[in-house]
Amino acid sequence: MIRLDDLENGYFIYQDTEAFCFGIDAVLLSHYPALREGDRVCDLCSGNGIIPLLIDNTAKKTGRNVRITGLELQQPMADLFARSVTYNHLEDTLTAVCGDVKEARALFGPASFSLVTCNPPYIASGSGLTADADMRKIARHEIACTLEDVISAAAGILKEKGRFAMVHRPGRLAEIFHLLHKYRLEPKRMRLVHPYADKSPNMILIEAVRGGGAQLNIDPPLTVYNADGTYTDEVLRIYGKI
Amino acid sequence: MIRLDDLENGYFIYQDTEAFCFGIDAVLLSHYPALREGDRVCDLCSGNGIIPLLIDNTAKKTGRNVRITGLELQQPMADLFARSVTYNHLEDTLTAVCGDVKEARALFGPASFSLVTCNPPYIASGSGLTADADMRKIARHEIACTLEDVISAAAGILKEKGRFAMVHRPGRLAEIFHLLHKYRLEPKRMRLVHPYADKSPNMILIEAVRGGGAQLNIDPPLTVYNADGTYTDEVLRIYGKI
Repeated sequence: MIRLDDLENGYFIYQDTEAFCFGIDAVLLSHYPALREGDRVCDLCSGNGIIPLLIDNTAKKTGRNVRITGLELQQPMADLFARSVTYNHLEDTLTAVCGDVKEARALFGPASFSLVTCNPPYIASGSGLTADADMRKIARHEIACTLEDVISAAAGILKEKGRFAMVHRPGRLAEIFHLLHKYRLEPKRMRLVHPYADKSPNMILIEAVRGGGAQLNIDPPLTVYNADGTYTDEVLRIYGKI
Repeated sequence: MIRLDDLENGYFIYQDTEAFCFGIDAVLLSHYPALREGDRVCDLCSGNGIIPLLIDNTAKKTGRNVRITGLELQQPMADLFARSVTYNHLEDTLTAVCGDVKEARALFGPASFSLVTCNPPYIASGSGLTADADMRKIARHEIACTLEDVISAAAGILKEKGRFAMVHRPGRLAEIFHLLHKYRLEPKRMRLVHPYADKSPNMILIEAVRGGGAQLNIDPPLTVYNADGTYTDEVLRIYGKI
């Protein structure tokens, strides 16, 4: 079912409830990289465009001139993003592109962005495109693109010293670091997201710099829930509730 | 000044107050890897032997048959460790060896240990042995051995599936992961140590497995101090105070 959801920041988003609805990971990633005046942003595996919409909202609220392209493989998802862009009258700053991450460099050219974001499929898959792969699976499993495809694509379209921000699962951190290094994207910031303060993290936010130096800064932990199950103040602030 | 300090666990340690006294990093590392029956442990950059002494203490208290060798480059430090071994009557389980980490494989042979620990010099140095390098500097700076020397040595003396546990600074995490991968030591566990719950970590504990699989487990954060500056219960437990 296609649904128009209120992002409660002045924007609305079209979502297909049977395909993919955005989660807190996309929201946290959208707020992780600091935006800079004049940023040209590309969001890979963009889905229904939640990340471009949230980054655009932040840019407008902070008075920054930022343009954002969302690249999405699946046409119905890219169409939803295009509908949201039109609905919110954001054609001047947001662009929906349907295409393959593996073709990103061919599509956009090298050094065409100063910031690349990605909330990729988390689940590693050794197999190729499976017969029963549906939109939901493609969004979650590495069926249509692997972690290496994403990182290679980011490196391929980033300017030198451009930033790549990604959210992923902690279990794949070693692989992520290895691939970032392989493509000259040096991790500069990392934040672990813990559901509760005393629990293991279930998400990692990483920002790497193309051709950056070797020093990594690890941020204080980001805790999602208080012990009583309510959102922490930091998460409420990110959601714009306080 | 040579001082005999009470570890308050039944053991005493000789320390040279002008050269190096152990810190909380050594204590936390000693307690990070789970000991297994029959473990053969080698502690690299062992200094005055604090880590072998603490691991031995844990092994005895938990009824495990574990033997531990401490390898230290600087003869006066290795001598202090040897004196502590004698003082505590631990000759059956602890051995002090004076030698270079870069010669570890030649000294001990390949596949001779099931667990290697290291609290290495933290501070990267591009230079070789400087004219004014004293014992204190050699313990803290990468003058006599680099991070790669340590990781290469660990891989060289570990059995297949043996564990390598290290404490280091968060800033060097990307480099650590890269080097572990290079020497087939796959990170399997990691824990960030935060001075206070809401502050960035200032230490990382890592356990890698020689020839292990790619999944990394990140533990809940370890917080050293409560907001009022007292030790947290977990740290008090590690120190054996509660």
